[in-house]
Amino acid sequence: MDGVERAVRRISSNDRFARMVGVAIEEVRPGYARVTMKVEDKHLNSVDITHGAAVFTVADTAFALASNSHGRVALALNMSINFLKATGYGSILTAEATEDNLTNRTGLYRITVKDETGDLVSLAEGLVYRKKEDI
Amino acid sequence: MDGVERAVRRISSNDRFARMVGVAIEEVRPGYARVTMKVEDKHLNSVDITHGAAVFTVADTAFALASNSHGRVALALNMSINFLKATGYGSILTAEATEDNLTNRTGLYRITVKDETGDLVSLAEGLVYRKKEDI
Amino acid sequence: MDGVERAVRRISSNDRFARMVGVAIEEVRPGYARVTMKVEDKHLNSVDITHGAAVFTVADTAFALASNSHGRVALALNMSINFLKATGYGSILTAEATEDNLTNRTGLYRITVKDETGDLVSLAEGLVYRKKEDI
Amino acid sequence: MDGVERAVRRISSNDRFARMVGVAIEEVRPGYARVTMKVEDKHLNSVDITHGAAVFTVADTAFALASNSHGRVALALNMSINFLKATGYGSILTAEATEDNLTNRTGLYRITVKDETGDLVSLAEGLVYRKKEDI
Repeated sequence: MDGVERAVRRISSNDRFARMVGVAIEEVRPGYARVTMKVEDKHLNSVDITHGAAVFTVADTAFALASNSHGRVALALNMSINFLKATGYGSILTAEATEDNLTNRTGLYRITVKDETGDLVSLAEGLVYRKKEDI
Repeated sequence: MDGVERAVRRISSNDRFARMVGVAIEEVRPGYARVTMKVEDKHLNSVDITHGAAVFTVADTAFALASNSHGRVALALNMSINFLKATGYGSILTAEATEDNLTNRTGLYRITVKDETGDLVSLAEGLVYRKKEDI
Repeated sequence: MDGVERAVRRISSNDRFARMVGVAIEEVRPGYARVTMKVEDKHLNSVDITHGAAVFTVADTAFALASNSHGRVALALNMSINFLKATGYGSILTAEATEDNLTNRTGLYRITVKDETGDLVSLAEGLVYRKKEDI
Repeated sequence: MDGVERAVRRISSNDRFARMVGVAIEEVRPGYARVTMKVEDKHLNSVDITHGAAVFTVADTAFALASNSHGRVALALNMSINFLKATGYGSILTAEATEDNLTNRTGLYRITVKDETGDLVSLAEGLVYRKKEDI
C-alpha cells in the first residue's frame, strides 16, 4: 500500500473531527488533495455565514491529505489563512491543496477553498514538519 | 446593552459551529476573551491527537468574542496559527485573545491556547476588518 | 497615464530603500509585477547567505508594484513569508507577484522568489488595504 | 564565550545587510534581543514613509539575535508581519524579540517594533529551524 492509500485510509477511517464536520475526500495524489463540504446549519456562525473554523477544517483536511500523501507522518507547524468571501447555507466548498515545496524535513502547501460558483472563499499556506515514521 | 453583552449574547445563542465543537465562553471584556474546550473523542484526528481544526476553533471563538466586544461587527481577514504542542483525549484547552492594536477599520489580536498544565499548545495572530454596523 | 505607469514611475523614481538594496523593475501589468536583484556582498547575513530581509525586499517591491498597479494607493497590512532555499553571492533573484484576490478595499498577492536556476527561494502572501486616493 | 556573545559577535561583525540598513544592537539575552534604527532618507519608500522592508529588517535583526542567542545556528522558516502605523524621516524604531516557544528543533519568536512615542509600528511572529551546529 503506497503513501497515498495509507494517508487516505488513515484519515478516512480515523479523523473524527473531519467526520463530525462533514468533509468528504474527493481525490488524492502525491502532494495533492481535493475535498468537499456542503454547508449546513451546523457550520454557521453567529451572523449566519459559514464559520471561519469550518472553512479552516475543509482547508486543513486537504492540507493533511496532501502532506501525508508521501507516506511519512507530517505534522502542521504553521498555517496562515485568508478569508476572502462569505458563504452560507447550501454552499458547496471545495478545498484543493498543492505542494509548493518539499524537503526531507518540511513541506509547504497552498490551499484554495472555492464555492460552487468557482469564487475563491479562502486561501491558505501551511507548513509541516515531516517525521521519519510512516503513516 | 453594551458591546460585550451583545457579542456574548450573539455568539452564545447563535454560533452553531462553536456549539457543535463544544467551546464554552468563560470571560469577555472589551478587547479580551477567554474560552475553554474539553478534548473529547470527536476532537481527535487520524493519529489520535487533538485536530488542528479543533484547536483553531477554540482560538477562533476567543478571537471572535474579543474582536466583536466593542459592539461593531468584526470580520476575520487573516489568521496565522502556530501549532506547538500535541494534546489528546481529556486535555482541557483554554484560549485567551488579547488586543494588540485597534483602529477605526482594523483590529489585531493575539490568541494563546494552553492546556491544563499551562503549556502553550498554539499561538495565533488574527486580523479583522471592522464594519460600521453594530453586532 | 494609467495605473501601471504611475506606479512604475512613482516607485522607480522615489523608492529610496529599493534603490539602495538594488532591486530592478522588469515588468509590470495590472495585478502583476516582476523584479530582479543580483546578490552582492552587501546583501549577505552573518553566515554568508542572502539575508532574509534582502529576500523580503525583493518580494516586497514586486508586491508594491502589483498592488499599486491599478492606480490607487495600496498599503501593506500583512505579509507572511516562507524561506525555502539559501542563496549566496552572485545569485540572481527574481520575484513575481500575482493577484489572488481584489476587492474595493483589499488586495491579496502571492509572491514567489526564484534563483537563477529556477529553484524556489521564498514564497510569500501579502494583503493590502486600498486607499481611495490615486498613486 | 557563551551563545549570546557568539551571536552578538557574529552578527555585529558580519551581517552586511543589517549594517547597510543601519540597525544597532542594544541588548541581547538568551531568547531576547532589542535593536534600534533611526529612519533616514534611505529608508523611505515611494510615498515618503518608512519602507516595509526597512521595518522588516529591524524586526528580523532582533529575531536573528534572539533565535541565535542559545548558541546554535537558527534559520528562519517563516515570518508573518503586520504593519500597523506609518512612520517617517527622523523616527526612531525599536524592535524587541521575545521567545514564545523553544524546542530542540524549532523556536518561535514574537517581535514588536515601536516608534519613539511608544506606538506599535509593526508586530511579527517568526519561526526558526534550529541546526545542530554552533553559531
